[in-house]
Amino acid sequence: MSDPFVVVGGDAAGMSAASKARRAAPDRDIVVFERGEWVSYGACGLPYYVKGEIQSLEDLVSVTPEEFREERDIDLRTGHEVVAIDTDERTVTAESESGTVVQPYGHLLIATGAESVVPPVDGVDREGVYTLGSMSDGKELREYVARARDDADLQQPDRGLACRYLEDCTGPVAVVGGGYIGIEMAEALAANDFEVNLFQRGDRVLKGFSDETSEYVAEHLRDEDVVLHLDAEVRALSGDDRVEAVVTADDRIEVEMVLLGTGVRPRTDLAEAAGIELGETGAIAADAYRETNVPDVYAAGDCAEATHVVTGEPAYVPLALTANRHGRAIGRTVTGTPTEGGDIAGTAAVKAFDSEAARTGILDPEEARAAGFDPVTETVTAKSRAGYYPADGTVTVTLTADRDSGRVLGASLVSEYGEGAVHRSHAIVAALEAKATVTDVENYDLAYAPPFNTTWDPVLVAAKVLAGTLRDTDMEP
Amino acid sequence: MSDPFVVVGGDAAGMSAASKARRAAPDRDIVVFERGEWVSYGACGLPYYVKGEIQSLEDLVSVTPEEFREERDIDLRTGHEVVAIDTDERTVTAESESGTVVQPYGHLLIATGAESVVPPVDGVDREGVYTLGSMSDGKELREYVARARDDADLQQPDRGLACRYLEDCTGPVAVVGGGYIGIEMAEALAANDFEVNLFQRGDRVLKGFSDETSEYVAEHLRDEDVVLHLDAEVRALSGDDRVEAVVTADDRIEVEMVLLGTGVRPRTDLAEAAGIELGETGAIAADAYRETNVPDVYAAGDCAEATHVVTGEPAYVPLALTANRHGRAIGRTVTGTPTEGGDIAGTAAVKAFDSEAARTGILDPEEARAAGFDPVTETVTAKSRAGYYPADGTVTVTLTADRDSGRVLGASLVSEYGEGAVHRSHAIVAALEAKATVTDVENYDLAYAPPFNTTWDPVLVAAKVLAGTLRDTDMEP
Repeated sequence: MSDPFVVVGGDAAGMSAASKARRAAPDRDIVVFERGEWVSYGACGLPYYVKGEIQSLEDLVSVTPEEFREERDIDLRTGHEVVAIDTDERTVTAESESGTVVQPYGHLLIATGAESVVPPVDGVDREGVYTLGSMSDGKELREYVARARDDADLQQPDRGLACRYLEDCTGPVAVVGGGYIGIEMAEALAANDFEVNLFQRGDRVLKGFSDETSEYVAEHLRDEDVVLHLDAEVRALSGDDRVEAVVTADDRIEVEMVLLGTGVRPRTDLAEAAGIELGETGAIAADAYRETNVPDVYAAGDCAEATHVVTGEPAYVPLALTANRHGRAIGRTVTGTPTEGGDIAGTAAVKAFDSEAARTGILDPEEARAAGFDPVTETVTAKSRAGYYPADGTVTVTLTADRDSGRVLGASLVSEYGEGAVHRSHAIVAALEAKATVTDVENYDLAYAPPFNTTWDPVLVAAKVLAGTLRDTDMEP
Repeated sequence: MSDPFVVVGGDAAGMSAASKARRAAPDRDIVVFERGEWVSYGACGLPYYVKGEIQSLEDLVSVTPEEFREERDIDLRTGHEVVAIDTDERTVTAESESGTVVQPYGHLLIATGAESVVPPVDGVDREGVYTLGSMSDGKELREYVARARDDADLQQPDRGLACRYLEDCTGPVAVVGGGYIGIEMAEALAANDFEVNLFQRGDRVLKGFSDETSEYVAEHLRDEDVVLHLDAEVRALSGDDRVEAVVTADDRIEVEMVLLGTGVRPRTDLAEAAGIELGETGAIAADAYRETNVPDVYAAGDCAEATHVVTGEPAYVPLALTANRHGRAIGRTVTGTPTEGGDIAGTAAVKAFDSEAARTGILDPEEARAAGFDPVTETVTAKSRAGYYPADGTVTVTLTADRDSGRVLGASLVSEYGEGAVHRSHAIVAALEAKATVTDVENYDLAYAPPFNTTWDPVLVAAKVLAGTLRDTDMEP
């Protein structure tokens, strides 16, 4: 009773930590404060909920609040917002409808997550402008989609002008941001017969991936009648009460809805106010055990930075697996078994209509040079199955390595959905974590059979080609 | 002219070596002797040719003899059987229809491949008994299939008794051996409406894979009406001229054809006669550069052993990728750039009807103990995509590690075809090559998105569970 483990935030990191701590310490007091009503939900599934492939928001929840309370004996307090942390007194203060509580802690985990970045332009507060950061965002979007489809069924003849490309258009909408959320939402909306305008500030979608991956995915988006607006920074969302158009430097596109997929930033206010240090990335800094500068105070999930396995430097890559893994490690550490959370590789995957893509490690040459590497990159397109096998898919692999050491730095892979770009990226992640060289990868004894790859899997083909380039450039004066 | 690179055997290892040497040394004399007419063919594709998914044997050839001769300037002599190697004189003697030639060599590569093992039982020489080791084997089998189907169309009413299970049976046939060739051929024959009886000496198919993988694949075979005869050592193939039945200790099954998929053994006669040493595995021994005990004489492909990355000991695992990789390394070595061929991990993959399976490393407890390890194994079945995603596949992963060091020793994975067991095995291969521990794998930052896996990929789930078991057993007295 005197040494409670207190968690602020009831999503992946927080609930993983609480669950792991419970298994390790059956008698420990474990208190979780969550300001909303949902806990342990799969935010990554929201685009598929909006799309209509998942029927109920509840389906995204892996463990319900009741299960946490009753089966895992965790004192989970939803509807409680933590408003202050006192690291001297070792307490947190939480407010709820029933008043204010001051909760002492023995160990504290800050898992406050991230919030959607709203670009600083006129009109983002108009009706019809959405983000997709929370379950309630998902609910509102799905309701919008259903409403718009009903309206379209009634009024189709009046909407022809705005929907320029599609015959049975539900209405033209905008997605701002060509990252994975933007692309998944473009798919979700297009599947519901919206004409989707995708606005990307830079000159390509999926900027963390390779150029070739971006181009491949962009082609798929265009094939599916998504209208790509590249180099198109949004200046304003115009309209009266309701958004009516997206305004860029060159254009004004009429839309009926805008989804902002312009990234997230860590929620750090609470930690900062308590004197907990942030790192250079702007997220909460933590050591290998995920402990902050304040003893017994941990941070994990989308509010915290982590160590990048390639650079050895802190990085901010807010994704679900890291949150789970770090939460789990903290649950063990605070119950007596110090456990490192492990590094990150900046790995990400996305399905874009009928294509799939993954990236991992460091691909950007400037980023690589800043970390002391001399990056060399090759891209190959290789058959995804034996050439004679009755299927003709390909996988395009971009591989980057350091010129002198040959160490693999990063990769980006893309293929048709089902041709295995994403699962093949697993091999490169393992190579990054092992600090393997391109020659090491070239010699991987990967599984081969005609229905799955060519004798040299596309990953090996990329390694062969890049190893050759490294050898050739070695010989230059 | 004075220092030719001579290759004996024109398949994967030989032609890879010749091609690589040509690229590195445009003026070198490169002579390849191949006793047959086919070179550089994908024997792994033969089951799909017999099945009918590949229309022509030529489709299996990646580079034709003409291309090797004309585009790659390789002196390829098909129809030439090398009958002697003289390592003192540094010559090989080859016979062909046009006589005998004695060819001097500067470097020699022995790439004589493997031959099908025919079990020492009565009747294996009867008509209607096939193996699948060569292109001509494939041709004969496909012709048999076509002929039998034609006959069946004409005579169906007379064949009802022998085909016990299937309505439109082409005829009952036997496949002897439940390895990957046996299983691929069972699929090929079943797809052509044969009733397939699969005879396996041991108690499960795919004995190099985990029990759970074997059981999963066996279920798929049974679902497809393959009649599995386990613990069924074949005693004789009875009949008159033509095979009529497979006889085991307990049973006599009438069949119209028998395919022997009972493994291969290295073709080493030529090397042995020349004083080249074999290893304990019975295949030709070679060092890291694939050089034999005789200087300047190399061995690669299905006639040679290789070093296993887990045990550090020689192993005989005759597969296409190793042949290609070792051939390529030799091509570089003999042209002035010493290049190691790389180790093997004993990786293999197979598609069995609608399932897929892969294995890598050391799974057999006795084999692990013989190599000085104390193996601990866990098997998990985990969802292949997010639980809420509209698909409900699973991947079953068996993972083995050493108790004390935690080092990963091997894995076996199985799933429905398309759910990614094979491509996921790539991560474990990379882990084996890096000598990674289970905790290392548990911390891999693998790609995640709902259409591809759960937040913890099945590979990570297996690592988590096995790491937990290792920790628990650590604490035992």
